[in-house]
Amino acid sequence: MDAIVIANGGENFLDSTYRYLLEPTGGVFEDCYIVVRKDGSQDVIVNVLEEESARTGRGDVKVFHNRSELESIFKESLEGCKRVGFNVDSVPYSTVTGIKKLTGYDYEVVDARKAVADTVAIKDGKEIEAIRKACSISSKVAKELPDYLSEGVSETDVATRMEIRMQELGGRGLAFDTIAAFGPNSSMPHYMPADYRLKKGDAALFDFGCKWGGYCSDMTRTLFLGKPPEILERAYEVVREAQQAGIDAYRAGAMAKDADLAARKIIDASEFKGKFIHSFGHGIGMDVHQPIYVSPRSEQVLSAGNIVSAEPGIYIPGVGGIRIEDTVLITEDGCERLTDFPHELTVV
Amino acid sequence: MDAIVIANGGENFLDSTYRYLLEPTGGVFEDCYIVVRKDGSQDVIVNVLEEESARTGRGDVKVFHNRSELESIFKESLEGCKRVGFNVDSVPYSTVTGIKKLTGYDYEVVDARKAVADTVAIKDGKEIEAIRKACSISSKVAKELPDYLSEGVSETDVATRMEIRMQELGGRGLAFDTIAAFGPNSSMPHYMPADYRLKKGDAALFDFGCKWGGYCSDMTRTLFLGKPPEILERAYEVVREAQQAGIDAYRAGAMAKDADLAARKIIDASEFKGKFIHSFGHGIGMDVHQPIYVSPRSEQVLSAGNIVSAEPGIYIPGVGGIRIEDTVLITEDGCERLTDFPHELTVV
Repeated sequence: MDAIVIANGGENFLDSTYRYLLEPTGGVFEDCYIVVRKDGSQDVIVNVLEEESARTGRGDVKVFHNRSELESIFKESLEGCKRVGFNVDSVPYSTVTGIKKLTGYDYEVVDARKAVADTVAIKDGKEIEAIRKACSISSKVAKELPDYLSEGVSETDVATRMEIRMQELGGRGLAFDTIAAFGPNSSMPHYMPADYRLKKGDAALFDFGCKWGGYCSDMTRTLFLGKPPEILERAYEVVREAQQAGIDAYRAGAMAKDADLAARKIIDASEFKGKFIHSFGHGIGMDVHQPIYVSPRSEQVLSAGNIVSAEPGIYIPGVGGIRIEDTVLITEDGCERLTDFPHELTVV
Repeated sequence: MDAIVIANGGENFLDSTYRYLLEPTGGVFEDCYIVVRKDGSQDVIVNVLEEESARTGRGDVKVFHNRSELESIFKESLEGCKRVGFNVDSVPYSTVTGIKKLTGYDYEVVDARKAVADTVAIKDGKEIEAIRKACSISSKVAKELPDYLSEGVSETDVATRMEIRMQELGGRGLAFDTIAAFGPNSSMPHYMPADYRLKKGDAALFDFGCKWGGYCSDMTRTLFLGKPPEILERAYEVVREAQQAGIDAYRAGAMAKDADLAARKIIDASEFKGKFIHSFGHGIGMDVHQPIYVSPRSEQVLSAGNIVSAEPGIYIPGVGGIRIEDTVLITEDGCERLTDFPHELTVV
């Protein structure tokens, strides 16, 4: 590739790579661009709204006031390029086609996902400290969860309380919308909290995280109000054992899939065969999901400085679900859990 | 178009049109799809993680467990289509190219932005009530702002307090990251709160909103700690007058640009000519920015049921900025402010 273009769309289509490359102190950067060249230099192409914010970061800031100025900037920036890379999962279709039309150049659009993912996957000390801080904030809330639970409390009540508490403890924004799923709702891995009220014997599953310094934490804790049905007690033990087996397989140089397979083997050897319906883990960074895939078919090799989730689950429709999740730092000789909460079965 | 495909990417690339069409009670729907046909029927194409959530909504749910099942579903769903529409600003490049490759069909990719925007721009009673509720929550916080301000308080302190307060008052999530910009920082329209501490004479600009029932509020209030420099007092009066002039031009059947031009005329006739560096307004719905463009060159005509912002500003680099913003419902004979806070100059 002769250049890589990192491009933001509107507010729901911001590529975190933009902030990663620019390191600004503020700004939103909707419909702004960065062109990275082979030598590592970068043009930061922003509208006038973002000029002041852009100048707090790295790179050669080029400001446009209108479409014709944007055209001139791109024509100059991509001149002579034969192959231009885009982070194709994180850029709107209209942006890729629009830039090409704007320049009139006949370059080939190249998939730059791997180059971008490899760059952001290894965290430096500053990034690890930010994630450690975000994990410490959400871990405090995880430990408080038993105090939030009582008969009749609703999913949204608890989710709101958790989100407020993460803010109070220093979190700046959520890593994602908090999942609080009670009773049968906990069997939906991506359930959103609603009006369901907690009953005796229910599982109460919480999947949550905050941001600190722009970086995310991600964790899941499942508790019970009163003694759960035996099937859920048993599922809890299997998930706990599966998580430990997966974490034991996390180390620099290991295949990512080995962690998934180690956990999956334990669940599939139990009476819950086939009930672990997602991957064991994913990369975590400025986005709560980054492209490290800890799944059965992943061909990725883990490196020191990767930060990944470890989150096996068992889902029994109509009854409930169990998931336990930590945020984990891969190290040379193993890994370190950055989140911290009691993993044994907790009955409130 | 023979069909329109609404497609989500990962968590940062969710098209709100997906929830608008499905109306589910929960779910996230990453990498899920909806194919809408001419007769209004829709295929809801989801992975197994989202199956239970998808069945709470509208349409014919089709579940895939792997790529080959996804291929079969799309081949059947798009069979015979010559022109397939995509919401091209809100779908990743890889998704549009990936679906085409998956089917092997030779259809033309068509820009369906306008069809989607026209559909979501007119709010029904239930949607208006949700936005009214979100506006009422953020308006309560707007009125409390004087209590939050004192010498030495930081931007992030106040932003965090506002976000917690919106949650406590019933907001479910933020419409966007709260902007709190003090002193010279207020001259950057998209500034993000940092460690700057409020000083006597500073402007304190807050741009914020929450969600309720999935719908957004959006408002901006600018206050002062102690008597401001005369230039900012004067700018405040000009912005207030400009906002009223724009709002007076809001009505069903009017050109959107007329509101922008009415406001801009007042600012450009003052000593602040050229300092209003963005548009007067934008559509508001499930996203805080929806494609109604209230800008000088907009060719859109307003309709009853549109919900738009009214937000003129004056930005003086190194000194400070003033912006006043309401969320406004367009009605047959004018408009209604859904946000509510004191618009006169407020010195704390």
